[in-house]
Amino acid sequence: MAKSNDTKYWNTRLREAAEYQPGEQPQGLEGYIKLNTNENPFPPSRAVVEAIQAAAGDALKRYPDPAARELRKAYAAAKGIDPENVFVGNGSDEIFTLLFRGFIEPDGVAAFGYPSYSLYSTLAEMNGIRYETVPLNRDFSYNLPGFSKKKYAMVIIASPNNPTGTYCEVGEIRSFLGKFKGLLVVDEAYIDFYGGSSIKLIGEFENLIVTQSMSKSYSLAGLRIGFAAAGAGIIRGLMKIKDSYNIDRLAIAGAIAALKDTRGFAYNNEMVVSNKEYLEESLKALGFEVVPSRANFVFTRHPSVAAAEIYRLLKEKMILVRYFSGPVQSEYVRISVGTMMEMKRLVKELAAITGA
Amino acid sequence: MAKSNDTKYWNTRLREAAEYQPGEQPQGLEGYIKLNTNENPFPPSRAVVEAIQAAAGDALKRYPDPAARELRKAYAAAKGIDPENVFVGNGSDEIFTLLFRGFIEPDGVAAFGYPSYSLYSTLAEMNGIRYETVPLNRDFSYNLPGFSKKKYAMVIIASPNNPTGTYCEVGEIRSFLGKFKGLLVVDEAYIDFYGGSSIKLIGEFENLIVTQSMSKSYSLAGLRIGFAAAGAGIIRGLMKIKDSYNIDRLAIAGAIAALKDTRGFAYNNEMVVSNKEYLEESLKALGFEVVPSRANFVFTRHPSVAAAEIYRLLKEKMILVRYFSGPVQSEYVRISVGTMMEMKRLVKELAAITGA
Repeated sequence: MAKSNDTKYWNTRLREAAEYQPGEQPQGLEGYIKLNTNENPFPPSRAVVEAIQAAAGDALKRYPDPAARELRKAYAAAKGIDPENVFVGNGSDEIFTLLFRGFIEPDGVAAFGYPSYSLYSTLAEMNGIRYETVPLNRDFSYNLPGFSKKKYAMVIIASPNNPTGTYCEVGEIRSFLGKFKGLLVVDEAYIDFYGGSSIKLIGEFENLIVTQSMSKSYSLAGLRIGFAAAGAGIIRGLMKIKDSYNIDRLAIAGAIAALKDTRGFAYNNEMVVSNKEYLEESLKALGFEVVPSRANFVFTRHPSVAAAEIYRLLKEKMILVRYFSGPVQSEYVRISVGTMMEMKRLVKELAAITGA
Repeated sequence: MAKSNDTKYWNTRLREAAEYQPGEQPQGLEGYIKLNTNENPFPPSRAVVEAIQAAAGDALKRYPDPAARELRKAYAAAKGIDPENVFVGNGSDEIFTLLFRGFIEPDGVAAFGYPSYSLYSTLAEMNGIRYETVPLNRDFSYNLPGFSKKKYAMVIIASPNNPTGTYCEVGEIRSFLGKFKGLLVVDEAYIDFYGGSSIKLIGEFENLIVTQSMSKSYSLAGLRIGFAAAGAGIIRGLMKIKDSYNIDRLAIAGAIAALKDTRGFAYNNEMVVSNKEYLEESLKALGFEVVPSRANFVFTRHPSVAAAEIYRLLKEKMILVRYFSGPVQSEYVRISVGTMMEMKRLVKELAAITGA
């Protein structure tokens, strides 16, 4: 075997881009309580499982619909918009990649909040797009006026924000759009738990793109379905630049079934919210500072035990939470909402760690 | 709704790139015999269906393994290579996109044969990569020395070639690699029907990438699984640039099961080859010229009936074959191999069309 464990054939951009670090995915370490990647602790709808099982048959020999029309129709109906305003991506990740590739000129600059979802800057680098960050306010709310100071080609706002859980009101987004001429992407991966989507603004502003995901609120991280809602011109551009058959038949079938099971969806989300509120109250009772969150996770720190230490000690106890290096973030851990049993185990270990 | 059916927010590259035209996918037109997109006429293995049905459950709430380790291990074992030499893409399409994005400098030039898979040039344009084409020889074999005349950053050879079905011997690939310093991508989407893969050369040449697909020979076009085999450095680059979770849990489970069912796979391929030989003989008996093919399709023309006319008349009879515009190609139709019943229907209609 030729020795080729080097980067000789990588282009400069690939060599220089920072690598994205997804949360630890312990393979074969089944004992862990996994509260580090914001997955939903409850299973997906039975209707999804049945739809996938029905789709897993002879039809797999055929390519999927390259335009995923049935799924776009179902999503559009659920959101009260038109299918021509809907794009489906292989997770929201693919949508962000496509936006960087097709909607910013080489001299354009993107902007994100800090701290926010670290994938944005990774993808910008990977696509040769320069970017700047605008620090969140001290309470971790977005400083939207801070994004108007320069002519950014694209701004990505996560609402609720990851990892802080903080939320931008629709009214704030609307005011910002009144002044902003670039593209505004509102990443709503976590919107479904508390609602309040900006999707209703897409008819008003042709420079708005709202992305959503089935990974969290639909318990379908394993299926890879993300949506973008935007004006028809932007959607056509996304369709043009995507790979021909980006969504497979099983994901299309499962996602359509998920959208139809509105009762199961509402019930699942209520349980997540209820467990999250239990987690918040319990953390506060242990002396933790808890950032107000509208997502299925909380961003929290303790006055006397360092976040890195909390992360490490919990891992020893077979509980994974997310710890980020970097300024501001490194003072906190991000804890995903689990089942009630998992939350109780976590709280018990945290009581021991903090000596409460 | 704001009028936004325009390309105002597209960047120059997206605006200027030509759009890829996948073969017609008639939605809801169930009566058609579909011989236009090289899908396998036989169903996928039962083992695949069962593995997907088993994977469709609570685990869908969890992200898939971002490195698809189990699948890479299974593919590596099947091919006698190491998992560190294997990458899995959301179809081969994703792999080509990633290669253009991460392995060519902005001033690099790519080269493809002509006629060949039209997606290569579309993807090059979409990624701002200049490209040239080197015409195939008159018998539609590759003119490999023609690719050595300039310092191309990347050459993509399809073997068997699409749409011609012609094949490059491993010895020819090896000789070419002895002289060529750029990256050579051998697209083997159609290799399994007759064998003769260049994958055995990846240990010898660190600038070789061999791509394969489960869409055709495994009857899994609906699942989106493509593979790249190459030196570890190239694979690490592909892993770095891909979206974090590019392959979903169901596709991973199905693909692993497909690789294990070697008997079903061999049987399926034998049937395809046998039907293809029937098709070739029948076409010749009707006076067609048939380009020798090692794929599951044939590229063929008739001395007196124009290809466009054959396409149109077959479509009237509810049979879809592929017709390409453009020089050389427009003289031919490409016909995918179907079931024996479909081949007999086709031959009957062609007999009527050609007056044989």
